Amino acid sequence: MSQSDHVRIFDTTLRDGEQSPGATMTSSEKLEVAKTLSRLGVDVIEAGFAAASPDDLKAVQGIAASVGVLAIEGRPVAEPPRICSLARAAKGDIDKAWEAVSPAQHPRIHTFLATSPIHREHKLRMSKAEVLERITEMVGYARTLCADIEFSPEDAGRTEMDFLYEAIQAAIEAGATTINIPDTVGYTTPDEFGRRIALIRENVVGVERAIISVHCHNDLGLAVANSLAAVQNGARQVEVAVNGIGERAGNASLEEVVMALKVRNDHFKLNTSVDSTQLTRISRLVSKVTGMSVQPNKAIVGANAFAHEAGIHQDGMLKNQETYEIMRPETVGASQSLLVLGKHSGRAAFANRLAELGYPLIGAELHKAFTRFKDVADKKKHITDADLLALVSDELYQPEELYRLDALQVTCGTGMPTATVRLQCPDGELRTVSTVGTGPVDAVYMAIQQVVNLPVTLLEYSVQSVTRGIDALGEVNVRVRWDDEPVESDESRINPQSGGSRARVYHGHGAHTDVIVASAKAYLASLNRLLSVQQNRTARDADADTQASA
Amino acid sequence: MSQSDHVRIFDTTLRDGEQSPGATMTSSEKLEVAKTLSRLGVDVIEAGFAAASPDDLKAVQGIAASVGVLAIEGRPVAEPPRICSLARAAKGDIDKAWEAVSPAQHPRIHTFLATSPIHREHKLRMSKAEVLERITEMVGYARTLCADIEFSPEDAGRTEMDFLYEAIQAAIEAGATTINIPDTVGYTTPDEFGRRIALIRENVVGVERAIISVHCHNDLGLAVANSLAAVQNGARQVEVAVNGIGERAGNASLEEVVMALKVRNDHFKLNTSVDSTQLTRISRLVSKVTGMSVQPNKAIVGANAFAHEAGIHQDGMLKNQETYEIMRPETVGASQSLLVLGKHSGRAAFANRLAELGYPLIGAELHKAFTRFKDVADKKKHITDADLLALVSDELYQPEELYRLDALQVTCGTGMPTATVRLQCPDGELRTVSTVGTGPVDAVYMAIQQVVNLPVTLLEYSVQSVTRGIDALGEVNVRVRWDDEPVESDESRINPQSGGSRARVYHGHGAHTDVIVASAKAYLASLNRLLSVQQNRTARDADADTQASA
Repeated sequence: MSQSDHVRIFDTTLRDGEQSPGATMTSSEKLEVAKTLSRLGVDVIEAGFAAASPDDLKAVQGIAASVGVLAIEGRPVAEPPRICSLARAAKGDIDKAWEAVSPAQHPRIHTFLATSPIHREHKLRMSKAEVLERITEMVGYARTLCADIEFSPEDAGRTEMDFLYEAIQAAIEAGATTINIPDTVGYTTPDEFGRRIALIRENVVGVERAIISVHCHNDLGLAVANSLAAVQNGARQVEVAVNGIGERAGNASLEEVVMALKVRNDHFKLNTSVDSTQLTRISRLVSKVTGMSVQPNKAIVGANAFAHEAGIHQDGMLKNQETYEIMRPETVGASQSLLVLGKHSGRAAFANRLAELGYPLIGAELHKAFTRFKDVADKKKHITDADLLALVSDELYQPEELYRLDALQVTCGTGMPTATVRLQCPDGELRTVSTVGTGPVDAVYMAIQQVVNLPVTLLEYSVQSVTRGIDALGEVNVRVRWDDEPVESDESRINPQSGGSRARVYHGHGAHTDVIVASAKAYLASLNRLLSVQQNRTARDADADTQASA
Repeated sequence: MSQSDHVRIFDTTLRDGEQSPGATMTSSEKLEVAKTLSRLGVDVIEAGFAAASPDDLKAVQGIAASVGVLAIEGRPVAEPPRICSLARAAKGDIDKAWEAVSPAQHPRIHTFLATSPIHREHKLRMSKAEVLERITEMVGYARTLCADIEFSPEDAGRTEMDFLYEAIQAAIEAGATTINIPDTVGYTTPDEFGRRIALIRENVVGVERAIISVHCHNDLGLAVANSLAAVQNGARQVEVAVNGIGERAGNASLEEVVMALKVRNDHFKLNTSVDSTQLTRISRLVSKVTGMSVQPNKAIVGANAFAHEAGIHQDGMLKNQETYEIMRPETVGASQSLLVLGKHSGRAAFANRLAELGYPLIGAELHKAFTRFKDVADKKKHITDADLLALVSDELYQPEELYRLDALQVTCGTGMPTATVRLQCPDGELRTVSTVGTGPVDAVYMAIQQVVNLPVTLLEYSVQSVTRGIDALGEVNVRVRWDDEPVESDESRINPQSGGSRARVYHGHGAHTDVIVASAKAYLASLNRLLSVQQNRTARDADADTQASA
């Protein structure tokens, strides 16, 4: 193959990943993930879908202006990642995408149009000729704004091959520089999908002028294998998400695709620009801000992925390391760095360690985190890296605190679990409520509800102690569903790969040495997040009412 | 291909799966998993490694005698699964395997010997000729005991192909009826692995007399794809584990392999005997008894796998179901059956619902579970199926209660978290201790440690509310490591696919409406499990000292 041996890694954690139920991130969380993706070395960051809402546009724009540029927080960047926004094949969407990504050094617009019969007939109500015309027109229009255009024929998997060739050719002729082939419903097998990519490369006139990309879903557990089959057949961009999150069973997992190409370089003879030693860190960050847990037996980043390393006897004499190991934990940044800080550590040591962990905090953020660190250090003997990450995450990635926990007292065990909660309310008042519940968390949540009074259902509640010891900092994740939101009927959240949907589910995260306090903080965080999103939405709706339709 | 279109599903949840760090199961848990696997319709249950310890032998034997027979608990079974034990290629191991599986209607012995140069030279110190001779001798010996013999050439992936053919041929000539090809370190790609199976089928004389099996590990996220590539090239048995558990990143996941073959029957044209509607149930059971969580974006059985179904708007009008769905939640038993029982439900309704859920309890077990149910029903408005499963699991799958929680009282929130614990000790005494901790769980655990006094480190602590509501039954899983156990130097835990290792990690599970009480129960359960295992081991060592070596 005369093509380059470089496979571009296109990360869609912030777009498709964020569409996982309950994985909604705030703008500041998205920015932090984007910074970490940039350090990781991905080639393209799909930062969102700008036309979905003014908030989404602003979030993409913020990433373009601070991560897609030649210096991040004063530190020069050799080659900033391409920053991309999704856009339907419509002028209004493309304009918004361009508005969002144009501050970046290397902006990209990713536009899409369905090409399969079922979508043409039932969704678009367009003929083949009309579809081709729209592709030519809209890719061409996008190209007048931006030199880097990606086009996806939605539902390519069920499109007649001949028509698919025509659609791709039209997009390339109109100026598309990347053509992305999605496996929208995670249905194909590696042999089928590889063959499809080979056919496209054989049959589309001018295909050599574009990079072929793939976007695979994991419904049958085959997303990574399908992606690898595609690169073996000439694809040179793979769309992935950290921890494999995304709609339903998620997307191809970034870390698995990257490590398969790296560990089996002898077989694939292909490279990526990803610094694999940062994979564990970004996995934990994404798990934290989305509330999506990673199972212990997850490949590459699960707690057991290298468990032959620790706590387990090996018949060392007879079996040397090579016998049972294909990669070292250090390669993916999973080595344990323990017990680096304690209550006597100073601010400089603290800031330095945080920077090493990928959080170069300064000013007010550093001050806030350091104050919290001292507070925790008073209660814990040793502060591990995992504690630090939990603590920073808790301080930095919280939505606006409309309601704030002022005080909490709980009695439980035998008898009646009782909670007394005092909340600082948005009107400045302090309100105190006592309730009895089935357990301490239930009692606390009922007390909070008596003050906040929102129609929500608790979908999921989970606690994890992130550090290896009984005196761990407890981390609580909750997901609540708002039961009062009307079902949306517009198409504002359609996306080409995974079907249109938008969760009414909000997550909250809290960390504290007292798991009951962490529970209260997590629940309040989810309610505050819900309230923030609703307020923004109300503002946007009011805004939309005063505008003419585009 | 003239071969049968039936792919045998060989489940190794109880052997390789149990070797996941911390996933150790008790004999009664293993039996319950085996019963559920039998109802699921798997063809072969690898129930353990009989020679590893007298406990392991007994556990396999119990499964052979009650699940491998023509009636389970009085209900006739059309075709009981084959019950299999692993055995090294040595007379002593094979004898123990036979002792364990012989009560079954269809017993199988699975023996293995390494064939790669690195293993021949460093581990076995045997020549090629000696390896072939050992295979002939030991497979032949096993065949004199049992008609159904599986042989695995360990580290087949790094064995010279010519020698691999010779080894397989020797095994078949000596009477092996199944030949299993492991990808021990999860290193191969689907195209490589498929090709290897094809080569074996082309080049081994007499290969048509045996079924070719594969055993793939998931280190690069390719276990399922490799297994499917193998069946496309003529393998007719796939070794899998529920939820994909197993050493490191685990084995090929049972539910993904089964559903890929079912959903893509048009492509593979192959069938299994598995009743897919029971996949969700067995996934939850295995997650519960092993303490290995399942991530929300896990294919088939993750909480979000069908999340386009619930709580999310669908652009219904324009996109019909077919557009974005390749399987229905009902197909894998994921439909939600809600609110079936409450405090006024009687024992018959309770027993009936449990039986429907796969737990046909009678006698003392039913009585115990019903008493617990009434207790929970007093505190909760609605009892869901998930609550029932949590409750039954808590009652039935606990190790012997050497230490028992008699009373617990906790105060936390502001100020100093304080716990008072009263334990019933093995000597019959009640001991009461009060301690202050960094949080309520820490305080409780320190109090328990003051009584039990074992050198353990808490590795993992997690809480999950299994039901969809604030008044949920909290479930706590903990994993502790015993820090006082000497490293084993014998090879008793070697296995052909994944390297020899044995965890010193024990898990505990507790369920209660009060999460602090559940935490106390889970921690005590892990300590009781550790003590049970240690007592058995001490008894076995004493036993071994009085015997001549085999």
